Amino acid sequence: MEQITIREVAKACGVGVSTVSRAINDHPNISEEKKQRILQKIAELGYVPNNSARNLKRTEGRNIAVLVKGMTNPFFNDMIKVMEADIIDHGYSMVLQHVDPSEDEADVALGLTKEKRLCGIIFLGGIATRTGEKLANIKVPYVVSTVGAPLRKVREKDYSSVSVDDEVEGHKATKFLTDKGRRRIAIFAGAANDTSVGMLRLKGYKRALSEAGIAFDEALVRYLPDEDPEYSYENGYLAAKRLIADGTEFDAIFAVADVMAVGAMRALYEKNISIPHDCSVMGFDGIELSEYCTPSLTTVVQPIKTMASETTGLLFDVLEGDGEHRHLVFEGKIKEREST
Amino acid sequence: MEQITIREVAKACGVGVSTVSRAINDHPNISEEKKQRILQKIAELGYVPNNSARNLKRTEGRNIAVLVKGMTNPFFNDMIKVMEADIIDHGYSMVLQHVDPSEDEADVALGLTKEKRLCGIIFLGGIATRTGEKLANIKVPYVVSTVGAPLRKVREKDYSSVSVDDEVEGHKATKFLTDKGRRRIAIFAGAANDTSVGMLRLKGYKRALSEAGIAFDEALVRYLPDEDPEYSYENGYLAAKRLIADGTEFDAIFAVADVMAVGAMRALYEKNISIPHDCSVMGFDGIELSEYCTPSLTTVVQPIKTMASETTGLLFDVLEGDGEHRHLVFEGKIKEREST
Repeated sequence: MEQITIREVAKACGVGVSTVSRAINDHPNISEEKKQRILQKIAELGYVPNNSARNLKRTEGRNIAVLVKGMTNPFFNDMIKVMEADIIDHGYSMVLQHVDPSEDEADVALGLTKEKRLCGIIFLGGIATRTGEKLANIKVPYVVSTVGAPLRKVREKDYSSVSVDDEVEGHKATKFLTDKGRRRIAIFAGAANDTSVGMLRLKGYKRALSEAGIAFDEALVRYLPDEDPEYSYENGYLAAKRLIADGTEFDAIFAVADVMAVGAMRALYEKNISIPHDCSVMGFDGIELSEYCTPSLTTVVQPIKTMASETTGLLFDVLEGDGEHRHLVFEGKIKEREST
Repeated sequence: MEQITIREVAKACGVGVSTVSRAINDHPNISEEKKQRILQKIAELGYVPNNSARNLKRTEGRNIAVLVKGMTNPFFNDMIKVMEADIIDHGYSMVLQHVDPSEDEADVALGLTKEKRLCGIIFLGGIATRTGEKLANIKVPYVVSTVGAPLRKVREKDYSSVSVDDEVEGHKATKFLTDKGRRRIAIFAGAANDTSVGMLRLKGYKRALSEAGIAFDEALVRYLPDEDPEYSYENGYLAAKRLIADGTEFDAIFAVADVMAVGAMRALYEKNISIPHDCSVMGFDGIELSEYCTPSLTTVVQPIKTMASETTGLLFDVLEGDGEHRHLVFEGKIKEREST
């Protein structure tokens, strides 16, 4: 599995992946000199281009759709960049479409498969369980990525998935805080009707509290507002402002997305609540900003790049090989920084 | 021009724009109830769907490509979301492709036009002037968005553009700092060979210094590293660390992108340099984070949403109407916050 990827070739050559792809496929839009330089580097590194990319001419129909729920979350940006490179590597184009919180991604997917010649679909985030029956109508292979809960009413062998175990990771994050002696841990969860990652992380939070002998207090659970159920700076900021205004006692905040944690830290700062002295803050995701914000953010780091490349890998296994659908679960790691 | 947009209809109905589009186009993948509810709201609000969207069936070839240079910059994310909604509104699909810093976007565009049936292209960021001759080979209409410099070797009537005047805005940002009495203003610019927005903002910086009677000092100009010429938290952080390590005296930093300003503030914090007391920090763009970071960031706010919808508007004027190519320049506004 120590294979050289097209991204590594591109990096070594100082060009983009699509340029490497053009060199391999003898595309007209590349200078002879650049092509030779890239082919030289490919030989040096021992990169083996994907068979399908060499043997199949890219045609109009070779599209992979990526449906993203949660556009405002930078967590998905890094994943999309990796997936796009893989998709180009395999000789396909990426059609990106955002799905609004109120939309059912299965509807969007069905619309796309009818309107365009799609070969496969990647669902990134979202996937409410209400979509189960509709997903059965999707006739191209699909992978569900970073969605913790298994799909209801869809057989495991009919789709692939990549995720962390969100209940376990939510437990890990909360236990980290209880181990530090925090007893009044507020959680900024997903929407109240969330049946996906937000709900699972909340479940892990409850289990960790129970193990630490701390009574669960509903007043410490803050859901996303119904009218704007997105993980965002603003929603983290507003939730923290309300928590402070309520007079609810708290000594830690666990936000189930880094962006909400950053927004929460801003609200604490404005009220002169010292982090981590008066209140510890824990995020979830491991976005780049968690390292650069002030204070820097302790968070559960998901292996973003690996999860992204496994997502496309699973899709191409089914699409191009005789691979079967599989379900991969990765482990998050707590990165301790200044906020706790 | 006070027309209701599809986004406003979607918001009023609590659904996504593609759902509204399905209701209008009598698409099968929408429940009768939801369709009626949306059509009712359309009548109420007086929304007039775009003619082309009603009269033309969406076919495989109706793609608009958006080529983004600078994936790590959240500034583009908000623009993409607005543009995507407009593109769907007009009955097209959006093909998003990222362009690596080392790639020539004209090459990427030419590749796409040959491989897929594209109707139009939006270039977001980037566009080195070296691409001039190649752009002449692009046979579909295109709009160049948020690129300050006019394209060389392309006639004005052959493309549209949307931007701010980056020289004027760079001057404005710098003048704001000199008016506050800052004399040793470091600038975190684009790449050293940048001929686009980075270079123009630097030019504005020089003019403002000169007007304030401050001698230009090359030691205060920090360019992006050649090996990773992207506006990013990391590059802002590293530039500030080096500036501090150098022993170069400075009392302000003007970063030509908000993400770099946020990274710079982190480096100042780590060295106990007080913001704004010891060093003022000014950003550029007006990304959402500028409001939520600590300290909050003074920045030149570009009218992100307006610029995005004008970008697609110009494209559709040419594509669907008998509109001519036009060049729109918007004004940035300084938003003063805690960092200055």
